[in-house]
Parts: sequence; C-alpha cells; structure tokens
Amino acid sequence: MYIACFDLEGVFTPEVWIEVSNSTGIDELKLTTRDISDYDVLMKNRIDLLKKYHVTLKEIQEVIMNMKLLPGAKKFLDEIRPIVQVAILTDSFMEFVDPFLKKLGYPVCFCHSLEIGKKGLITNYKIRIEDMKRQTILALKSLNYEIIATGDSYNDVPMLHEADHGIFFRPPNKVIDEFPQFPVAKEYPELKRLIFNYLG
Amino acid sequence: MYIACFDLEGVFTPEVWIEVSNSTGIDELKLTTRDISDYDVLMKNRIDLLKKYHVTLKEIQEVIMNMKLLPGAKKFLDEIRPIVQVAILTDSFMEFVDPFLKKLGYPVCFCHSLEIGKKGLITNYKIRIEDMKRQTILALKSLNYEIIATGDSYNDVPMLHEADHGIFFRPPNKVIDEFPQFPVAKEYPELKRLIFNYLG
Repeated sequence: MYIACFDLEGVFTPEVWIEVSNSTGIDELKLTTRDISDYDVLMKNRIDLLKKYHVTLKEIQEVIMNMKLLPGAKKFLDEIRPIVQVAILTDSFMEFVDPFLKKLGYPVCFCHSLEIGKKGLITNYKIRIEDMKRQTILALKSLNYEIIATGDSYNDVPMLHEADHGIFFRPPNKVIDEFPQFPVAKEYPELKRLIFNYLG
Repeated sequence: MYIACFDLEGVFTPEVWIEVSNSTGIDELKLTTRDISDYDVLMKNRIDLLKKYHVTLKEIQEVIMNMKLLPGAKKFLDEIRPIVQVAILTDSFMEFVDPFLKKLGYPVCFCHSLEIGKKGLITNYKIRIEDMKRQTILALKSLNYEIIATGDSYNDVPMLHEADHGIFFRPPNKVIDEFPQFPVAKEYPELKRLIFNYLG
C-alpha cells in the first residue's frame, strides 16, 4: 500500500515568508537558508524582525489567509485523494499552514509549531522532531507503506532519498542538475501521471 | 502537538459485514470475532461464503456506497479537523472503506487491503502490519506526537492503552465494565468535549 507525501510551499502554495515580507514591507524577511545557512539563526532573525516591527501572529495569519493556493493545486489533490492516501510534510508551523490546509480540504499535515507571547508576538519556534520529513517517511515505512514523496528543493532531498519514489515539482535548475536521479514534474498533470505510474 | 486517531466502524459508520449480510441474505456473514475468535479463520470463512454465493467485491462496494455515516459523524469531523490533526485507524480494507472516506471528506486512513481474483471475487486479505492500530500509535509517538485515540470495542483497547489518552465511543456495556479507566462518550458533542479538554 502506498502513501503519497508532499511538501507544501512550492508544491501547493507560494512561499509564506516572501508574502509576509511583501505585505509588511520588511525586506529582510525574504532571506532564506540560501542567505543564512543555519536555520536556527535564520528563524531567530525572523522572529526578532517581527518583534522589532511589532508584527503579531494574527497579522501574519491574515496575510496567509489572503494567499491563494498555486493554480490547480486543489484540483490535483481532489483527483488523487480518492486513489492514494495523502500526507503533507512541511517544516513550517501549524499556526501558519492552517489556512492552507482549510483551502486544501484538510489533508493530514506533519509540521512544527510556534510559541506565542502575551502580546500575540511569536516568541520562539518548536521543532517537533529534527529531520522531520525523513523521520516521517521512516515511520510510515515501519508500518509497511511504500512512499511516493514530492518536494521542490534542497530541504526535500532527504525525504526524496528515503522514499521508495522521489519526485521534484518545479525545482530550481541547479537542484535538477545536482540530483538527476529524481524525475521532474513542472505541471500537476505530469505529477499525477508520475504518481499513477508508480501506483501501477 | 496532538493527533486524534479514530476507529471507523462503530465510531463514524455502521458495521460493514452486518450490512453486507443484510443485503445479500447470507446470515453467516454476521458472525464476528465474538463467535469465531481466530480472525484468520473468521475472514477465510467470510471469503469462502462470498465465493460460494458468487458475491463480488463490486457488489459489496455497492452495498457500502449505499450505507450512511452515523448521524452527526461528518459534522463532528468537520468541527475537529480545523483544531487537531485527524487519522482514521481501521482493521478494515481500503477496498471497503473508500466510499466512507469520500463521505467523510478523505481524512487520512491507515488500514489493510484485499486481493481480488479475475472474476471480481475476493481471493484473500492482506494485513499490512500485525497489531496495526497500536503500531501506528507507536510510529506517531516516535515522531513526538501526543495521541488521543477513540474506539468502540475490544479490538481498539491496545490502541487506547498505547495512546496518551484513550476514549470509548458507544462501547458495549461489558467493555465499559472491563476497562473502566477510559472515559466513555455516547454522543459526538461529548466526544468533542473530551478531546478538546485533552488539547487544553
């Protein structure tokens, strides 16, 4: 039996921090692990910036609620959920992804969470488990599932490696060059075809 | 972070084999593990009966498609899915539960599967993993989730024991007597209240 696992941002939704940066006008929120390679330093920098500019969780959630899914994402999910079990695996936080899950029809989602202070500001982030995406694949494999995993970038590579079948969806070109072993889908019908082929 | 795990039959849907028995008129399909304690013997007996009376998977699926969810089940799930991650854990088979999952809005479902022969008859059943419900709870706990598990009878007890919080939903009286440590909900609003209390 199969479970199809998907990253969220870049696969079904735009990137949250870019949108928060655009909406708040705080340019430094656009920095990613490509700019600050240590994720903990990056996240603490983001939290400090939000505090400095008094941007509350609620304001961020309003930005996210106004974000649209990538065109075709909901239709794609609606088409595959009757065929194969689906799980979302994202290194984002429940407080952020909730509006997206609602729009996607509440697929199950493995993610992390945030700590919120009295004034509604984000005070810290809580990683539920390190190397979460790969650990989730391992846990599902321990239950005798075969896994088809789809992601869009570097942070998905350990999950794609651990899965029985890994697929890139709209990855940057340098990711394609570096990991030529994974097939690439640029549109949802292609992604659907790849997944259905594995299901046999 | 929490995941709420639910048995399917008895919690959200009526019992499939009873309905199949009623629809086909094959009385012996009503037998359960209370009558034949060895599950393998019971299942092989069911498969033999279906073969003997030429009842195909398709015909069973039609029976299931015409079955209704328990009144209030969908509303209950719609109310809790925005609050906590949900998973269905059932020792039934994907080929049977699919119509129910559709009616429930495709929550993720951990279950088993069937082998189907050329004439559309069920030829065997495949247990994905022994002690599946409890093993799934263990796998989710290994990912640092806290688990609230809800079931209706004996076969759910290992899952309820392994979970951080176990709840019975409409169990037989003798199950209540035998396992007084688990709170009992008889209606969905009660079940919701119990779950929300654990979430804090």
